[in-house]
Amino acid sequence: MNNSFNNILIIGMGLIGSSIARAIKKNKISSNVYGLDLDQEVLANCNRLGILTESKKDLEEYSFQFDLIIICSPLGTYKKIFSSLNKFVKQSTLITDVGSTKVSVIKDYKDCCPNNKNIFFIPAHPIAGLEKSGPEHGFAELFENRYCILTPIENEEENIVKIKNFWKNIGMSIEIMKPEHHDRVLAMTSHIPQLIAYSIVFTANELEDHLKDEVLKYSAAGFRDFTRLAGSDPIMWRDIYKMNKEAVIEMLGRFAEDLTTLQKAIRNEDSKFLENIFSSTREIRKTIESLGQAGSFDPTEKKK
Amino acid sequence: MNNSFNNILIIGMGLIGSSIARAIKKNKISSNVYGLDLDQEVLANCNRLGILTESKKDLEEYSFQFDLIIICSPLGTYKKIFSSLNKFVKQSTLITDVGSTKVSVIKDYKDCCPNNKNIFFIPAHPIAGLEKSGPEHGFAELFENRYCILTPIENEEENIVKIKNFWKNIGMSIEIMKPEHHDRVLAMTSHIPQLIAYSIVFTANELEDHLKDEVLKYSAAGFRDFTRLAGSDPIMWRDIYKMNKEAVIEMLGRFAEDLTTLQKAIRNEDSKFLENIFSSTREIRKTIESLGQAGSFDPTEKKK
Repeated sequence: MNNSFNNILIIGMGLIGSSIARAIKKNKISSNVYGLDLDQEVLANCNRLGILTESKKDLEEYSFQFDLIIICSPLGTYKKIFSSLNKFVKQSTLITDVGSTKVSVIKDYKDCCPNNKNIFFIPAHPIAGLEKSGPEHGFAELFENRYCILTPIENEEENIVKIKNFWKNIGMSIEIMKPEHHDRVLAMTSHIPQLIAYSIVFTANELEDHLKDEVLKYSAAGFRDFTRLAGSDPIMWRDIYKMNKEAVIEMLGRFAEDLTTLQKAIRNEDSKFLENIFSSTREIRKTIESLGQAGSFDPTEKKK
Repeated sequence: MNNSFNNILIIGMGLIGSSIARAIKKNKISSNVYGLDLDQEVLANCNRLGILTESKKDLEEYSFQFDLIIICSPLGTYKKIFSSLNKFVKQSTLITDVGSTKVSVIKDYKDCCPNNKNIFFIPAHPIAGLEKSGPEHGFAELFENRYCILTPIENEEENIVKIKNFWKNIGMSIEIMKPEHHDRVLAMTSHIPQLIAYSIVFTANELEDHLKDEVLKYSAAGFRDFTRLAGSDPIMWRDIYKMNKEAVIEMLGRFAEDLTTLQKAIRNEDSKFLENIFSSTREIRKTIESLGQAGSFDPTEKKK
């Protein structure tokens, strides 16, 4: 089976898009990687970094077709992107994406590309990332040993296999899921933790000035772990909460109940209960380490 | 000024105690570092690691006195430790500690050592740690470039200076605070983030089995950052929530308000509001990075 592509287009050249561009070159999947981004500064960065064959601001500026297009832009841009693709795509093209929600993405696709027989869209979500934004922070190894969830909407096995192989070839393990299920799982593993991180940093930001300064100063005590997440791209996350509203609100309800339970135990000095909960959560951490999904944290500062 | 000690005793040889033992040797503060721990396995580990001159299970087993004693055990043990010290200490001894709350520690000291004129206790809280427990995970550099907060209760400047120098000599920057203020600041920078981390991992643990398995599997999406904190020592944290109950409940109230505000914005699809909040939290992250308190996170797995 041939796993290479002639011309790949990446729409959105941020952290993920630029990491994919690098991974494509590193793994020799295509020697022609084109980019699209509305931000001239981002394009200038990509050119400086030499990670693209060519880059443009608008899809119409390209005078040729692609055999693979990867959408790597915030969820709020999908409608516009699918509408342009609907006009642009004139020959058989595989399309995949990296969006953090899948129900909304599929709806946008169906709404905007109802009759284009050349577009084969296989939605994907590579579970990999970093709190940094911009192409200068991307790196080819970002996807290695991480999962990529596919939520296919069509039955052309051949195309699914091609997209599977694409993600595999940049180092990922593939899982297939129903889009609705994906959105619930990700609400819990990603959207809620992120919201909570935003929320606690928001709380710190609202504190009286002198207290706030001290909270930042002594953040090494635990708070800093939340600020890492809360340093993520605001536009990307704003869109996620719009697109996965129901699942997020459901999981938030569960979280609020459990936090109230812990608060009550603290008020009642129910030490035995707290110890039991804190011991069970420790087991979860061990499981994640044994699954090889823990990452590694260095409590010291990187030498500049 | 002489910054060395003849005989140092560390009570509690876990992650922090063992790191202090290593830091004392590395920085040549004393060549005689003695240890105390109720857990025979911990003592055996320390012997194997060769980080102590000698180790014992009970204070009474030592037939000589120390010039510096550092308490590094969970807050729930302080009463018993101060009572033993009250009986044991027969000559001028500096005592410091690493406890995460300071009001409770000072109360325990005052309750248990009311008349011992040889004990000079200068409460301390080195803001440094790791989610791992046990002497095998300790390392000498844990304290470098971190803050140590002192909350002195007596006015003998000479002793305060000696304890300041001790923490400075293992790499820390010293700050002086009122104990009540320390407990409020730490509630926000440490106790609340930790409780929230416990809470969200608790929520995941309560999910239906199949959903829970998937949450662990895809934890690289953000959830894993919380499990790192939630892997911390359960006994230590159980005691912290007992000893800093009021400040924790106060800050938890503020957090709950802010989370509800975000939830409402999600329900109402108030994207502008969310974007503003998410942008402001990003600034906080940048501040912490510029303060050199961010640590460094590697999203890849460490090579085994």
